[in-house]
Amino acid sequence: MIKVAIAGARGKMGMEAVHTVMKREGMKLVSVLDYKEVGTTLAELDAFPNTYEVPIFTDFAQLVEETKPDVLVDLTNPHSVYTHTKQALELNVRPVIGTTGFTDEQLTELKELAARKKIGAIIAPNFAIGAILMMKFAREAAKYLPDVEIIEMHHDKKLDAPSGTGVKTAQMIAEVRHEKIQGHPDEKETHEGARGAEFEGMRIHSVRLPGLVAHQQVLFGGEGQLLTIRHDSLTRESFMSGVAFCIETVIGMESLVYGLENII
Amino acid sequence: MIKVAIAGARGKMGMEAVHTVMKREGMKLVSVLDYKEVGTTLAELDAFPNTYEVPIFTDFAQLVEETKPDVLVDLTNPHSVYTHTKQALELNVRPVIGTTGFTDEQLTELKELAARKKIGAIIAPNFAIGAILMMKFAREAAKYLPDVEIIEMHHDKKLDAPSGTGVKTAQMIAEVRHEKIQGHPDEKETHEGARGAEFEGMRIHSVRLPGLVAHQQVLFGGEGQLLTIRHDSLTRESFMSGVAFCIETVIGMESLVYGLENII
Amino acid sequence: MIKVAIAGARGKMGMEAVHTVMKREGMKLVSVLDYKEVGTTLAELDAFPNTYEVPIFTDFAQLVEETKPDVLVDLTNPHSVYTHTKQALELNVRPVIGTTGFTDEQLTELKELAARKKIGAIIAPNFAIGAILMMKFAREAAKYLPDVEIIEMHHDKKLDAPSGTGVKTAQMIAEVRHEKIQGHPDEKETHEGARGAEFEGMRIHSVRLPGLVAHQQVLFGGEGQLLTIRHDSLTRESFMSGVAFCIETVIGMESLVYGLENII
Amino acid sequence: MIKVAIAGARGKMGMEAVHTVMKREGMKLVSVLDYKEVGTTLAELDAFPNTYEVPIFTDFAQLVEETKPDVLVDLTNPHSVYTHTKQALELNVRPVIGTTGFTDEQLTELKELAARKKIGAIIAPNFAIGAILMMKFAREAAKYLPDVEIIEMHHDKKLDAPSGTGVKTAQMIAEVRHEKIQGHPDEKETHEGARGAEFEGMRIHSVRLPGLVAHQQVLFGGEGQLLTIRHDSLTRESFMSGVAFCIETVIGMESLVYGLENII
Repeated sequence: MIKVAIAGARGKMGMEAVHTVMKREGMKLVSVLDYKEVGTTLAELDAFPNTYEVPIFTDFAQLVEETKPDVLVDLTNPHSVYTHTKQALELNVRPVIGTTGFTDEQLTELKELAARKKIGAIIAPNFAIGAILMMKFAREAAKYLPDVEIIEMHHDKKLDAPSGTGVKTAQMIAEVRHEKIQGHPDEKETHEGARGAEFEGMRIHSVRLPGLVAHQQVLFGGEGQLLTIRHDSLTRESFMSGVAFCIETVIGMESLVYGLENII
Repeated sequence: MIKVAIAGARGKMGMEAVHTVMKREGMKLVSVLDYKEVGTTLAELDAFPNTYEVPIFTDFAQLVEETKPDVLVDLTNPHSVYTHTKQALELNVRPVIGTTGFTDEQLTELKELAARKKIGAIIAPNFAIGAILMMKFAREAAKYLPDVEIIEMHHDKKLDAPSGTGVKTAQMIAEVRHEKIQGHPDEKETHEGARGAEFEGMRIHSVRLPGLVAHQQVLFGGEGQLLTIRHDSLTRESFMSGVAFCIETVIGMESLVYGLENII
Repeated sequence: MIKVAIAGARGKMGMEAVHTVMKREGMKLVSVLDYKEVGTTLAELDAFPNTYEVPIFTDFAQLVEETKPDVLVDLTNPHSVYTHTKQALELNVRPVIGTTGFTDEQLTELKELAARKKIGAIIAPNFAIGAILMMKFAREAAKYLPDVEIIEMHHDKKLDAPSGTGVKTAQMIAEVRHEKIQGHPDEKETHEGARGAEFEGMRIHSVRLPGLVAHQQVLFGGEGQLLTIRHDSLTRESFMSGVAFCIETVIGMESLVYGLENII
Repeated sequence: MIKVAIAGARGKMGMEAVHTVMKREGMKLVSVLDYKEVGTTLAELDAFPNTYEVPIFTDFAQLVEETKPDVLVDLTNPHSVYTHTKQALELNVRPVIGTTGFTDEQLTELKELAARKKIGAIIAPNFAIGAILMMKFAREAAKYLPDVEIIEMHHDKKLDAPSGTGVKTAQMIAEVRHEKIQGHPDEKETHEGARGAEFEGMRIHSVRLPGLVAHQQVLFGGEGQLLTIRHDSLTRESFMSGVAFCIETVIGMESLVYGLENII
């Protein structure tokens, strides 16, 4: 039974993580870290069922001493997350971190600390296992089928095009693929932009429509065949199987890993 | 039993049409029109099975007198097709024409001729019934779900982007849809072209990969839902059910129709 | 400005309908009908924002007299809906009803009443416009491409297979299609059930997976081509554009219509 | 420059292989093995362009002595393929074999022979790299997302359902997945077969329509997300990039490998 503490339990992602750990077999939520509400339990808060009798702490050292967690899941903001991670490692609690706001110096320091203490730590900018698998498979497929186009599709409230996942996928493919210009050399756009955004010879297309959530397909073309890898992310719950996977995996690790693609 | 003559039987499309009429129940190939090989039959040509004992004529009037076709399917080039169509109408043979090379004057003249003679005629730039249905359904759906994006996908030997069908679909949608700008008003392309080509507020994306043939999907987004209409055209045979449909339909018509979307 | 009353405002669908009418231009929520809370307004209930100052009535006649609605949207259960519909018609309020629980006698009576009063009424078992369009297009396409398979995909909490929409789609196709047995005549299942459920020669396949919501695709195959019509319903909001459409449409009608497919 | 000999050059697959090797950079067709036509070249046969001056042999030892191939691509039938493979290994020619007709004893013997000679050999029941990748990715994904359904889609001339690739994919997934029954425990088929064929708790659905060629998608569902891996095989050419890949890969190998999935 893995004992888990959560920081950021009252945020959107944090709340989902609380439910995930409470429901999942093999793990147990022993405490949460917050900046207020010390002395009470989740059960006393409006947002949680009144069976969730999990104590709230504002001091991490005290939390560790009293509830002895194996893992700290931190879903707070970049400001506090560096301090939490360092403290956790020093107190032999394995951190599972869902943010991207570390400087290179901070990352190097945390990596060395984890290595010296010989305990696992995971920093995951993206917890959606399906999306990670899509990117890994895409990188693998591009070795054999180097003609690639990416179609990412999101709701029409999204500001940026292409999506972060779209660009990240193209970057991962570019690591292994010989750069090549795709399409007919004399190809001509009669309506500008039709062929999408160019990324090292690949093409990325961004669809924006109401009703869409977050979807991406990566298409690989070869003589007489087509391989397509598609991921649809419909609700925030898609991140939770990744959180649970990290909790289960970090227990057996002895160093810090950045990015789920390196342990999946 | 509908009696059919074919002009252009030795071209790629013509050959397919010959096989279609030979195999289809309810119709019979009685003659073909060519500019040479008069006096022989298809059976004597290398390109056809030696059971195809269909006489070849070089003179249309003689062909009509000797074989009395109900319908002339013309798959020749724009040069000869106008003359053939006019001759056919004058001799009370219903023309089914697969080309786009008519001037407006010629079209008007042929329309009047068909109306005066009270016999049917079909001019069809595109015989693929599935593609026609896709375009018709797209025009209908856009009345209720006006947020539209088109993704057309073709082999990487194609020169132009977007495809003719892609643009034609957008045009048909624009006929019924209130023009609207889609996506977030502050949307920003971090890689140029990501959002595709703009067409009256709609977006068209062109994918080009080896292995693809000719595919298109039209996506309609609404609150909480998505409607997608997709057509895949994999071989030239996709045109043949359209040819057969025209042969069967033109018999009951009393005027000239331009475009299959007007009789389907 | 269309004046709307809603019955069943505190149910899941009803709440969405309240938000829809409040936000939509060209319509205004003037009152709601409930069995309790008379004398208060929606603003005083926990479930609604405190700007929703819409009066609650328990008596429909009084509601009509005081707030003079043009349309009654009824999202209550089959028990009360017949009475509401009849009362509405008698008081010259156009009913928009989202249930299926009418007997044939009740339907006939309501139809005659609407016809006599010359006012519109809509009874819609399914408000999702995208799903209705999918079914209509499928029925149309089957006339030209009679080889059809349906793949419906839902979450794994669903009990019945195939889904109601899957069967309804097959029924609508069967209305126009010549019955035909599909597939190879000597086809053989090495694993039983692989070819799906048989429905007048068509095949229906039911996919059940966590992560899915409610999706269906209808595939039409022809020589060298494939036409696919797909609907994805991701949230309850997908019904709301249908409700708004009915409110706007019923105003101009002079009889009762059963099923959105008959006015779309 | 890799020197290649081909056995079975006049078969459908063999002809494609001849064209592939002739066109591909880095390799050269030096001879073909046949049971007749000795002394002539491919250029003299109707089926090949008259620039293909590749000598035909009926005796393999003589072929090796005179043309010194590095690789033998064998696309003949199971009868001759065992003898060819053994002879090739003994004469230090690396075999690339596209058949499945070996007994276990023959395979063991050939493996030992390759190991003793320290030269590579590839036996590949399926050369379509895209299909192999799909199966490998599916096996990998099932470790993290164990709810799986397979939809395979083929032309309506196919006799068996499910397809060989469909069953093979399920088998590969079953190797790594904890067996689990999917769907609702009280799930009920109102039309028999709707839920498809059962394979260790997974479900396989077989779609058969004219217009389809050979397609498969593997769907993985998780909370709030869906991962789909799809392969479309449209022409026989899809096998040829696999043949070329094997020719290039077998050169650097020192043992016999069965199945492309073990070297990709």
